[in-house]
Amino acid sequence: MRALPLSKVYQLLEPGPVVLLTTARKRRANVMAMSWHMMIEFEPPQVACVVSTNDYSFAALRSTGECVIAVPARKLASKVADVGNSSGRDIDKFEAFGLTKLPASRVAPPLIADCFANLECKVTDMRLVSKYNLFILEVLKAWIDPAQKNPKTIHHRGYGTFAVDGEIIRFKSRMR
Amino acid sequence: MRALPLSKVYQLLEPGPVVLLTTARKRRANVMAMSWHMMIEFEPPQVACVVSTNDYSFAALRSTGECVIAVPARKLASKVADVGNSSGRDIDKFEAFGLTKLPASRVAPPLIADCFANLECKVTDMRLVSKYNLFILEVLKAWIDPAQKNPKTIHHRGYGTFAVDGEIIRFKSRMR
Repeated sequence: MRALPLSKVYQLLEPGPVVLLTTARKRRANVMAMSWHMMIEFEPPQVACVVSTNDYSFAALRSTGECVIAVPARKLASKVADVGNSSGRDIDKFEAFGLTKLPASRVAPPLIADCFANLECKVTDMRLVSKYNLFILEVLKAWIDPAQKNPKTIHHRGYGTFAVDGEIIRFKSRMR
Repeated sequence: MRALPLSKVYQLLEPGPVVLLTTARKRRANVMAMSWHMMIEFEPPQVACVVSTNDYSFAALRSTGECVIAVPARKLASKVADVGNSSGRDIDKFEAFGLTKLPASRVAPPLIADCFANLECKVTDMRLVSKYNLFILEVLKAWIDPAQKNPKTIHHRGYGTFAVDGEIIRFKSRMR
């Protein structure tokens, strides 16, 4: 994994891919699939996300205030579906689905080696957690796997259907 | 335009497409491109989004509390880039880029006839506006254009580069 400048983090999440969210509590790591996330600031990068009270990860995220957002490419799609269809209450999903943990540098939850990007995050605002389960995160450290060239991300349309990145188009832009 | 059940709205935004946001103030409509949005509740559908104080739409959204989220398909990509590269301070973007306004049923901002889906929204929570420019919206009414079959959406990667939906893959799912 190679460090990614924090100024480029938004380019990973702005397109809206499904991500994997890792947490750790009482020395046990867990992972969930998440699509309800968005950038809210470029640099330092801040992210808003919804983690439901129904998710086993909720308690760990709220109590530890730490997580890793890992971005999977197309080749991990079936594992992402498996992660989304199971709960850390019942199984160790890393072991069950063959996902490889790596230690993070700034937080306790693990990176996922199989993902092409990993973002180490801390919770910075919980004002909207009680009403919407909405957490505000700051990205402290970002990693990219240089071995995964031009990864295609996957975008959840509901009920296990995903759109994979296809054609890439470019326009002159004044936008960041 | 045909009414879309509110229970299906999340399937439009969860994949993370670029959308167009319309507002109206003093009888003048405006439109901006927006990628920083996410679902936060299924039904009634609620959406969080970031509209910057730099955006001309900010004042209209904050003062009127109403907007329309319109979802463009691939064929509108160059117009989406044009909308993102210009400001309602300077021009009437509907006229400049040939986007067709339609009256909405529940809010003053217009639908965009060229888009395959339109969501009429009201602002329901502004607690995080001052700190993050983050608005909470409720979708009051949703429309879909049945003439646009299997629309491919576009996902902004920064600086005018977009990934277009490609392959669609399906897995058995317990997820909604």
